[in-house]
Amino acid sequence: MLTYYSDDHRLQDGKAELIDGRLEPCHEAPVRADIVLRHVRAAGLGEIVAPGDHGLAPIARIHAANYLGFLQTAWPKWVAEHGDYDALPLNWAVRGMRSVEPDSIDGKLSYFSFDAGTPLTAGTWQAVYASAQVALGGAAAVGGGERMAFALCRPPGHHAAGDYFGGYCFLNNAAIAAQAFRDGGAERVAVLDVDYHHGNGTQTIFDDRSDVFFASIHADPRQEYPFFLGHADETGSGAGEGATANYPLPWGTAWGGYEQALEQAVGRIGTFGAEALVISLGVDSFKDDPISRFRLEHEDFLHIGAAIAGIGLPTLIVMEGGYAVDALGVNVVNVLKGYLDAA
Amino acid sequence: MLTYYSDDHRLQDGKAELIDGRLEPCHEAPVRADIVLRHVRAAGLGEIVAPGDHGLAPIARIHAANYLGFLQTAWPKWVAEHGDYDALPLNWAVRGMRSVEPDSIDGKLSYFSFDAGTPLTAGTWQAVYASAQVALGGAAAVGGGERMAFALCRPPGHHAAGDYFGGYCFLNNAAIAAQAFRDGGAERVAVLDVDYHHGNGTQTIFDDRSDVFFASIHADPRQEYPFFLGHADETGSGAGEGATANYPLPWGTAWGGYEQALEQAVGRIGTFGAEALVISLGVDSFKDDPISRFRLEHEDFLHIGAAIAGIGLPTLIVMEGGYAVDALGVNVVNVLKGYLDAA
Ligand SMILES: [Zn+2]
Ligand SMILES: [Zn+2]
Repeated sequence: MLTYYSDDHRLQDGKAELIDGRLEPCHEAPVRADIVLRHVRAAGLGEIVAPGDHGLAPIARIHAANYLGFLQTAWPKWVAEHGDYDALPLNWAVRGMRSVEPDSIDGKLSYFSFDAGTPLTAGTWQAVYASAQVALGGAAAVGGGERMAFALCRPPGHHAAGDYFGGYCFLNNAAIAAQAFRDGGAERVAVLDVDYHHGNGTQTIFDDRSDVFFASIHADPRQEYPFFLGHADETGSGAGEGATANYPLPWGTAWGGYEQALEQAVGRIGTFGAEALVISLGVDSFKDDPISRFRLEHEDFLHIGAAIAGIGLPTLIVMEGGYAVDALGVNVVNVLKGYLDAA
Repeated sequence: MLTYYSDDHRLQDGKAELIDGRLEPCHEAPVRADIVLRHVRAAGLGEIVAPGDHGLAPIARIHAANYLGFLQTAWPKWVAEHGDYDALPLNWAVRGMRSVEPDSIDGKLSYFSFDAGTPLTAGTWQAVYASAQVALGGAAAVGGGERMAFALCRPPGHHAAGDYFGGYCFLNNAAIAAQAFRDGGAERVAVLDVDYHHGNGTQTIFDDRSDVFFASIHADPRQEYPFFLGHADETGSGAGEGATANYPLPWGTAWGGYEQALEQAVGRIGTFGAEALVISLGVDSFKDDPISRFRLEHEDFLHIGAAIAGIGLPTLIVMEGGYAVDALGVNVVNVLKGYLDAA
C-alpha cells in the first residue's frame, strides 16, 4: 500500500484552542502526524509518497469561492488588526440572526466558522492546502488502480463544510477526495466516517446529492460535539434523500455496540452500489482519547480495518481525528493492518 | 429622579472572556456598576432605591421556559462535568446545522448562546435575576407616575434574545421592562438603543410585534460585533413590519454623524405614538472605550440625554454597555443630567 504525506502539515501549529471553557494547548498538533508516519514506517506497510500538486480546482469543487478567498487572505488581515498571534472567532449567526458575510476580518472569521476551538494561524492555508493535496494524491493512486491508499492528512477535514471551518478542520479532505473519484469517472462514491465525532461537514456537503452516500458512526450529538448534526433521523434531503445514514452511539460505547453499527453501515454501503470508498478515519474512539468517551481497545481497530476491506471497493483511507498521541500510531496502523490482512 | 440598583450585580464576576482571539479579564466587571453608582450619588441626582422582587413571571413574558430552566440549573451541571471554574460555550448551530437542544451541559451551553465571550459563573443566575428586577423596579416607578427613572442594570441585557445569551447579556432587561409597560396598560411602547453595539436581542424579541417599536443606533454590523443583525434593511417582520428601525454607522463616527441618526430615530418614535419609552443606554460610543470605535466626547452624552427628554414620554433608562471604566460615571451622569436639564 501507499501512504501519502506532506511535511507542510507542520505549518498548522496553533498555540491554544478553547475547550471545556479554557484555552488549552491544541490537541490537534503536528506531533499527531509525525507519530502516525513513524508507526507506518516502522510497520513496513509500504512506500511513503509526496502527493504532488493537483491545484486548487479539485478543492473548489467542494468549497465556495468566497470561503477559499477568505482562507487565503485572512492571516495578514488579522495581523494588521490585532497583531501576530493566532486568530479565534468570537460569535456566530444562530437562530434569528442573518448569515451574511461581513467586511471586517473579525466578522469574516465569525461568518466562516462554527466554533471557537480552531485557531487560524500564519501557516493555516499552506497546511490545509497541502493536506487536501495529500487526499488528492491518494485518490489519484486509487483511481489509477491501487486497491487501497492511506492519505495521512493533517489538519483533518470532516467538520469543515463548503464555507465554514471548525473542529480543527478547514478543508474537507474526504469530501474533496470523494468528488475527485466522481470527477475521475466513478458513478457513485461512498464515504464512511468512523471518527468519534460526527462528520457534520461531509454530511452537509453531500446532503442533497444522490451520487455520494455518507455514513457516520459517532457519539450521539445530544451528548457530544458538534451537537447540531448527526441524529439518526438525518437521512439526506432532496435528491439526496436516503443517501445519508447516521449511527449515533452513547458515551461509553465499547466494541460490542460499535460493531453492530459498523455492520449496518457496511451493509448500507453495499446496497448503495458505490464504485469507490472514502474512509474518514478518526481513532478518537479509543478508550484513552483525552477528549472522547468511547471505549475501543487497540485490537478493535484491526476489526475496523477488516470490516472496511470486506466492503471490497477501491478505498482511500483519510486521516481525521485521534488525540491520545501515544496510542495514535498503534491504532492507525492496526486499521491499516486489519485491512491488508483481510483484503 | 430615582435610580434603581441591587448589590447582587457583584455575583456576576467572570474571570475571563474570549475577545480578539485571546482570553482577557472580563470588560463587563462589577467595577462598572460601582463607578456609575458612585457618580450618580456624587452628582446628587436623587434617591438610590432597591427594586423589590417582582418575581419570575415578568421575565418569563420575554424569555423561553427552557432557557430560564437552563440558566437556573447550568452551574452545578457544569461543575459536575468540568470543575469549579467559569463556563464558556464552544460551538454553534450555524447555517446547515440543526438548532435542537442537546442533553449534555456542554451542548446546552452551545445551544443557548451565540458567542464565546460571555462566561456563565456560579453567581450568574442570581445576578441576572437581580438585574432584571432592577429594570422592573424602574418600570414600576415610571408606570406609577415618575417621569423618568434610571435602572442601573448589571449584567446588561440587550444582546440576549428570548432563548440565548451572549455579549455579556443573559436576560434582556430593556425588553422585560418594555413588556412590563405593555402589561401595565401602555398600548404602545418604544425602545431606543444607543449602545455602541446593535441590540440584536431586543430586535429579535420584538421583531414580529407591532406594539413595540425598536430603534437602534450602532456600529455597522458589516464591521462590528454582533455582525449578524442590525443592517438598515431590517425593519421588522410580519405584524411587526415597520416597527424596527436600524441606524448603522461606520467606525470613527463622531457627534456630527451620530446626531443625525439620533434625530431620525427620535422622529420615528414620535410618529409611532408610544405611551412609554425604554432607553438601552450604552456609553461605549465614547471615544476612549477599549472595545469600541466611535468618537463621542463627554459633553455629547449631555446632548443624548436632552434628545431623549425631547421625546416627551414617561421614560425608563436601562444601563447596557460602556467599558472605559474611568469615564463611565461621567458619561452616564451626563446623559441623566442632559435629560433632567431639558425635561
Ligand atoms: Zn474526532
Ligand atoms: Zn455595547
